[in-house]
Amino acid sequence: MERQFDEELKHLKQMLLRMADTAQEMTGLAVRALAERKEDLIGQVFKLEESVNKMEIEIENDVLRLLALRQPAASDLRLLTAILKINNDLERVADQACNIAETAEYLLKEPPIKPLIDIPSMAEFVQKMIRRSIEAFVNHDPVLAQKVCEEDDKVDQLNEKIFRVLLTYMMEDPKSITRAVDLILVARNLERIADHATNISEDVVFIEEGKNIKHHAQETK
Amino acid sequence: MERQFDEELKHLKQMLLRMADTAQEMTGLAVRALAERKEDLIGQVFKLEESVNKMEIEIENDVLRLLALRQPAASDLRLLTAILKINNDLERVADQACNIAETAEYLLKEPPIKPLIDIPSMAEFVQKMIRRSIEAFVNHDPVLAQKVCEEDDKVDQLNEKIFRVLLTYMMEDPKSITRAVDLILVARNLERIADHATNISEDVVFIEEGKNIKHHAQETK
Repeated sequence: MERQFDEELKHLKQMLLRMADTAQEMTGLAVRALAERKEDLIGQVFKLEESVNKMEIEIENDVLRLLALRQPAASDLRLLTAILKINNDLERVADQACNIAETAEYLLKEPPIKPLIDIPSMAEFVQKMIRRSIEAFVNHDPVLAQKVCEEDDKVDQLNEKIFRVLLTYMMEDPKSITRAVDLILVARNLERIADHATNISEDVVFIEEGKNIKHHAQETK
Repeated sequence: MERQFDEELKHLKQMLLRMADTAQEMTGLAVRALAERKEDLIGQVFKLEESVNKMEIEIENDVLRLLALRQPAASDLRLLTAILKINNDLERVADQACNIAETAEYLLKEPPIKPLIDIPSMAEFVQKMIRRSIEAFVNHDPVLAQKVCEEDDKVDQLNEKIFRVLLTYMMEDPKSITRAVDLILVARNLERIADHATNISEDVVFIEEGKNIKHHAQETK
């Protein structure tokens, strides 16, 4: 029975990996749609969201079934709770990607203010954070998780930079304001995705090192 | 033993109510700090966040302990999982309130662009959504929960209105752009809080009516 439980955990982790892959792919597609002005990519994002939603429900049901049938010990319980949380974070990453796709849908009807360079780099960066946070979870790697947490500062800097550059465009040409604000919101969406990667990584550190860095980060440093 | 489980569930629900009260109070304080230009309220928001963080950890530990000790049946399991999720949503509401407080901190150093009217009404509205979503949970009231879900449209309209009004200010006076964008982001933070109230309400409908309206809202309508 113990071995069967391990098998089921392994299956759950594989599903989380697939879900993370899909959510970060959606992020990449939504930003490419926007930056490369490829409208057909927007539909792909919404299509992938449906499969993320299905995966979320499947994972949640599997965890509940495992909880009910196997009555796991404390450490496995913590693992299963973490899977529920990570599941939730990944679904919200997918939501943010959809928000970006919706903004892209609107922005592609207007002429571009400028070529987008920083937003695609920010997207690549946060996509990597999502991938690495799940890898850290699956491979029990708190060191990698800690690294992902630290990368959040870089994301804040990128976000700040994007904001400042767009501000100058708005100042120079008030007609660009609506579009510039939309781009600022896209950067915010990416920042939220990085937050989810950080949440996941904090959960990994918590499980692996048995301490909660989330609310005590300052004290333990 | 069954009765003791009920007692513990009751205690958990009371903690969630307290946490929801605190999170919505933080939202109100942060927006009042901004609208009434009362800097001292900002510190109160950050202070309350500490207690929300403590409550989050306490609730999570209690749920895990209950899961491990009581090995609850399927329906109680779903309830406990919902508590974990709601706990997470409320902590994120508190996070959004802190974001607003941080923005207020910056904006109070600058002269106001305009008297704020719509943002405080939006705040009141989403505070009520949070309270009602938790009431729906505690009182097993899927009808109230459904109402909260429907209120999300009103929030989107308010958000849209705030955006349009601020846009005109930016167009007329480019020097107001930074502050106007900050106010747009405050409205976004409030919109996110409404999203959490909607998430909680969807969980309530799911538990009480045993159907997942989250991803099937369109199909079942």
